[in-house]
Amino acid sequence: MSTHVTSSTRPQALFSPGVARSAVFPVMRHQVSTLEPSLARICGYHLGFLDEHGDPASGGYGKLTRASLMMAVAEGVGLRPEDVRSQAAAVELLHNATLVHDDIADADDLRRGRRAAWKVFGTGQAIHAGNALQILGLRMVVDDSGPGHREIASTFTEAIGLVHAGQARELTIRPGSDAGIAAYEQMVKEKASALLECSLATPAMRAERPENVLAALRDSGRHLGIALQIFNDVEDIWGDPAVTGKPIRGDIRRRNPTFPVLVAMATDNPAANRLSRAWHAESTTDAHLQAMADLIDEAGGRHTAERLSRHHLDSAVEHLGRAGLSPTATTELTTLFDRIVNRTT
Amino acid sequence: MSTHVTSSTRPQALFSPGVARSAVFPVMRHQVSTLEPSLARICGYHLGFLDEHGDPASGGYGKLTRASLMMAVAEGVGLRPEDVRSQAAAVELLHNATLVHDDIADADDLRRGRRAAWKVFGTGQAIHAGNALQILGLRMVVDDSGPGHREIASTFTEAIGLVHAGQARELTIRPGSDAGIAAYEQMVKEKASALLECSLATPAMRAERPENVLAALRDSGRHLGIALQIFNDVEDIWGDPAVTGKPIRGDIRRRNPTFPVLVAMATDNPAANRLSRAWHAESTTDAHLQAMADLIDEAGGRHTAERLSRHHLDSAVEHLGRAGLSPTATTELTTLFDRIVNRTT
Repeated sequence: MSTHVTSSTRPQALFSPGVARSAVFPVMRHQVSTLEPSLARICGYHLGFLDEHGDPASGGYGKLTRASLMMAVAEGVGLRPEDVRSQAAAVELLHNATLVHDDIADADDLRRGRRAAWKVFGTGQAIHAGNALQILGLRMVVDDSGPGHREIASTFTEAIGLVHAGQARELTIRPGSDAGIAAYEQMVKEKASALLECSLATPAMRAERPENVLAALRDSGRHLGIALQIFNDVEDIWGDPAVTGKPIRGDIRRRNPTFPVLVAMATDNPAANRLSRAWHAESTTDAHLQAMADLIDEAGGRHTAERLSRHHLDSAVEHLGRAGLSPTATTELTTLFDRIVNRTT
Repeated sequence: MSTHVTSSTRPQALFSPGVARSAVFPVMRHQVSTLEPSLARICGYHLGFLDEHGDPASGGYGKLTRASLMMAVAEGVGLRPEDVRSQAAAVELLHNATLVHDDIADADDLRRGRRAAWKVFGTGQAIHAGNALQILGLRMVVDDSGPGHREIASTFTEAIGLVHAGQARELTIRPGSDAGIAAYEQMVKEKASALLECSLATPAMRAERPENVLAALRDSGRHLGIALQIFNDVEDIWGDPAVTGKPIRGDIRRRNPTFPVLVAMATDNPAANRLSRAWHAESTTDAHLQAMADLIDEAGGRHTAERLSRHHLDSAVEHLGRAGLSPTATTELTTLFDRIVNRTT
């Protein structure tokens, strides 16, 4: 791997979102430009570099969380940004593919503060566009021939399959039992953690690091995904729509049993019974959603969720420490983890 | 490749649908059983081995056209069925993934005479199920390590991406111009031909045959796809719903400009003008659809389509002849081509 390592003019903090953006976004944009024109337009809109009419737009294309993680680990194992740039673009394309499809499945009207792709271009074209992004991402790793390419391609393909499994499992979760919480945990490992594990492990595979390093990074990504998902669940109910880019309480409006709800309903707190009745009532008025939010809080759902999110964030950092990355990268990744989970800037 | 060749007790006509079914269907079924339970159920329903309630069912799981082609070419290049069995299962999973999503995109209620998956399980779960089938198929080729595995994985991934491109392009075709016919031809190469090319070429890649053999098989698959799609277009308008498993005239009801329509509207036959007016009227009554069908026929759309389908079928056979397969396989593939395009049994 020595040919992939340079100690020359390496910039500081490769993994800041700005740097990931300048390194990775042009690759994503170029890849999307190779698509069939109507797909290129929809994907360009979803990624934020085109508006609804196909005219240039700027901003809104997400935080490039997974690309930033990948570039940071690359730095930590002595690789150059360009050694994982196409993988970083690929993981973002795959992540965005799941968002395009998820918005249709959840009938979500908004994504990153703009109308979701299916609302603008129709369900059929948005299904095809999500598929196109997915295959674009997979082709980049399947056709790659650098070090560790077979393991990387296999990891990517497995990871995206796990996301689909988690998306489907989420729709089968029923609140009010421990089985619901167990299914939730399994769902989060699939839906939220799989691509994060893939992002953290890929540079180590490219650098041909031993299995214990890969395991530490995968463990770290698993906990990071759980911390992130639980925090997102809390934000859906008590967060600021200006930050999330989505209407507040979409999950409880749709009666999607998120972690605070599952925890609250599994308690024998009197609020849990009232919550259960409110949950099974069909009302979606703001007052009803507010009442549910208050009952979830009263039954301890918010407190437990926030505590558990922090706990998993701590575990993510702990496992990261076992990966033997450079101290600089470890420190910066720790900051990045916190920024990702808690949306601090 | 000598280890992959046996001349012992090889059965006759490996490529008959019955043989492909017994060799390939158990692999598909096993793969589906590894999915998250709700996805396994939806995919099992779509493939016909489960009913709407998740109980065992039999039949209806398609003709395994692409698997049959792959097994036949395998025979023709001296491979055993087991040498390409998992690729044959993979191409069928990918093909079925596109059907699950296409039925949602086209709002088609029926598939193979049964309710389409999205009608039974909802749009969201059907999107996830199509994705699951797609990734299941790709994982089988990405994780494979037999001869030619890199080229095979690359071909599969490219092919499914072309299908998505063709599905999207189809929605952009406007009748009444030569540009419409050119876009149609491009669309068919993507949507219909890509997986057939992949099916025919894969055994030759596994047997490490030279590039001219691969090119002949790809050319053959391209023409086969065009012949098949144009024949399907004709069947949509004038075929027997008991054979197609779909309601008649779904394409013209949705104003999906298929080949007979494009050809008819591009003529300067007086019927073309009347057809254009009927096309742009919103009526979908049976009488209106019948009138459109008669005008398409009168303007020559049916005749030209049937002639062109036969022409492409002839070209498919011609290119097949250049691939240097065993005479038995070539003869049997020629019969199979005719059966696929013309639905003869």
